[in-house]
Amino acid sequence: MQMSHRISGFKCSPIRRLSPYAVAAANKGIKVHFLNIGQPDIKTPPEALAAIRNFSKPNIPYGPSEGLLELREGVVEYYKKQNIDINVDDVLITTGGSEALQFAFMTLCDPFDEIIIPEPYYTNVTSFARTAMVNLVPITSRIEDSFSLPPIEEFEKRITRKTGAILLCSPNNPTGYIYTREEMKSILNLCKKNDIFLIVDEVYREFCYEDDFFSVLNYKDYEDRIVCIDSFSKRYSMCGSRIGAVVTKNEDFKANMLKLSQARLCPPDIEQIAAIAALKTSEDYLINVKEEYKKRRDFLSDGLKKIDGIFSSKPKGAFYLVAELPVDDAEKFAIFLLEEFSYNKETVMIAPAEDFYVTPKIGKKQARIAYVLNTEDLSKALVCLEKGLEAYTKKYL
Amino acid sequence: MQMSHRISGFKCSPIRRLSPYAVAAANKGIKVHFLNIGQPDIKTPPEALAAIRNFSKPNIPYGPSEGLLELREGVVEYYKKQNIDINVDDVLITTGGSEALQFAFMTLCDPFDEIIIPEPYYTNVTSFARTAMVNLVPITSRIEDSFSLPPIEEFEKRITRKTGAILLCSPNNPTGYIYTREEMKSILNLCKKNDIFLIVDEVYREFCYEDDFFSVLNYKDYEDRIVCIDSFSKRYSMCGSRIGAVVTKNEDFKANMLKLSQARLCPPDIEQIAAIAALKTSEDYLINVKEEYKKRRDFLSDGLKKIDGIFSSKPKGAFYLVAELPVDDAEKFAIFLLEEFSYNKETVMIAPAEDFYVTPKIGKKQARIAYVLNTEDLSKALVCLEKGLEAYTKKYL
Repeated sequence: MQMSHRISGFKCSPIRRLSPYAVAAANKGIKVHFLNIGQPDIKTPPEALAAIRNFSKPNIPYGPSEGLLELREGVVEYYKKQNIDINVDDVLITTGGSEALQFAFMTLCDPFDEIIIPEPYYTNVTSFARTAMVNLVPITSRIEDSFSLPPIEEFEKRITRKTGAILLCSPNNPTGYIYTREEMKSILNLCKKNDIFLIVDEVYREFCYEDDFFSVLNYKDYEDRIVCIDSFSKRYSMCGSRIGAVVTKNEDFKANMLKLSQARLCPPDIEQIAAIAALKTSEDYLINVKEEYKKRRDFLSDGLKKIDGIFSSKPKGAFYLVAELPVDDAEKFAIFLLEEFSYNKETVMIAPAEDFYVTPKIGKKQARIAYVLNTEDLSKALVCLEKGLEAYTKKYL
Repeated sequence: MQMSHRISGFKCSPIRRLSPYAVAAANKGIKVHFLNIGQPDIKTPPEALAAIRNFSKPNIPYGPSEGLLELREGVVEYYKKQNIDINVDDVLITTGGSEALQFAFMTLCDPFDEIIIPEPYYTNVTSFARTAMVNLVPITSRIEDSFSLPPIEEFEKRITRKTGAILLCSPNNPTGYIYTREEMKSILNLCKKNDIFLIVDEVYREFCYEDDFFSVLNYKDYEDRIVCIDSFSKRYSMCGSRIGAVVTKNEDFKANMLKLSQARLCPPDIEQIAAIAALKTSEDYLINVKEEYKKRRDFLSDGLKKIDGIFSSKPKGAFYLVAELPVDDAEKFAIFLLEEFSYNKETVMIAPAEDFYVTPKIGKKQARIAYVLNTEDLSKALVCLEKGLEAYTKKYL
């Protein structure tokens, strides 16, 4: 009996693929510092945790497919504080940012349609494209340019009758780059000229370490072609709650996406109640979280600079960076770190970046490094990385 | 800008399509008895509610993509009590039975592949098929035969190179029929002969009012081609928690479905914790729930018999039945009940059954009626139905 080609034809994500090696290392008594995954150690807002503990319904009923009204109203308020004017009708709650991206793909694209995306990009986008049978058309952004937006002509060249949308992620996972207003404007003009949608994944919006973030939703003149992806996961350290949202002013999009929402009935109820409360936390919460991540970014960035042969640009946002390593193959090195190496009974896990690209071989020497650990652990992880590189070089290079 | 054909080409579900009429009725001060939707009023097990209130993690982290180990172990225990022997590896937790069905379709079928299904069937299956671009191939089961399995030759005739699976739902939503052992055996033999999968949606397993339920997982000789869909929603009155599961022994299926699970990261965390606790509730809980639904079934079934011109068979399980009404068009009648009719400031909402069929026009006079209300409300709903039929007949027939 055959499995579908669309699923059997793709590999597990690199992060998941390497996890058996991490388990084996832990079983040998080695402490693994996880720089490979965006699992924050920051506390969820106490208001959200209290809302969970105060759950008082007699049962857990289906909610509205578009999400609880109180949550959608909360999202509107959240945007209003950022001077973005949206209505409750413009917000559709999803089961995580993951579902928001999937729904956007399904709503806009038929099989063999295309989505243009700068690479490297969030690796699960490959899976969403495969399930929707959508082809990702990559444009390489370069580490030498800090992963800034590739020339607009490169996008233009790739637009065809089959193009369903351009997809950007800003602040970017995995690069930490934040697209400038000029870059956003040029992409939006291109979308307007060619009458296509722009999907922007802004789930890391609150983690900008240089300037205030300027959401794509500010560009009112283009609002009819903008689909913004949002999520509570990282912002409030509630990744496991799986609450995200699509924000758009496009009526056709909303009406069609709602059918997908209705088919899966509703997002999880208790988690939405937690999200409603998270939005009511004090402004200090996000300020403090941002400060903490900024400290970690600076610490990691400075630490990497001191390691011979590693090249990385300083990320402006999110909590990842992509580093070029002085190795032949970052995946081989990542496995080496888990399987053959330890220093003081510790090692470090990184995410090889090759799968963050569609184009083969690019990124073979690159890895994504997350700075979700506190600086004390980051410090130990950096030591492991440096010693690991030395040991790997000695053995294999 | 165009929306995808796969989504724009299908209608909202009849239940959701009629809901504006129900809202309008409520706004006029009319109490609507909802017989259209499976939203139980039964209490969730106190253990589950207590687990939510005792949530004590400092944040809400990503869990494993396949679901929390403790929950998968709990599911294994649950099956063990029913003398079904499965391992933790055979259980993949999903975000509701909805996701379980979607994942099964995606894992087994490429675009334009086919799934054979007896109609009427759970209407959201249409949406899952559309998003996966899978064609549903219906075989009509007849109200005169209590919606029993259509002749096996009808299935055999429809098997082609494109057939990905046969999908059954037992106990059935919307008909309440439970397939007999002979029926299941004949379908399994057919699947074996043609080397295809059998997907069985058993989410209503605990609601069987005549005999003990006999799960498809009991057929060990066929286990490699069986995919069982399960859910906590109805069983423990926690529909809004969105926790379901796929149970299968097929290794290829598991490996491929896991990629889909990984892409969406994990099922909701707190809701899984609630599900773990729900599984630990006393055996009395499910016995009492079943007794309550049985009482409601008998009440509804007897009540319908007393209304002139309504024909329905007595359902054996789940909490729905399909009734043939003495009207020209069940959807028109359903709208009439909400828009033009009330009795003592009350009315009733039913789900027209036409959309539960692929084949056009069949089921035009049928409606799905859910018995999730207590008998007092059911009694009032039956009065509204009877008076509504009289008024509709007078006006339109």
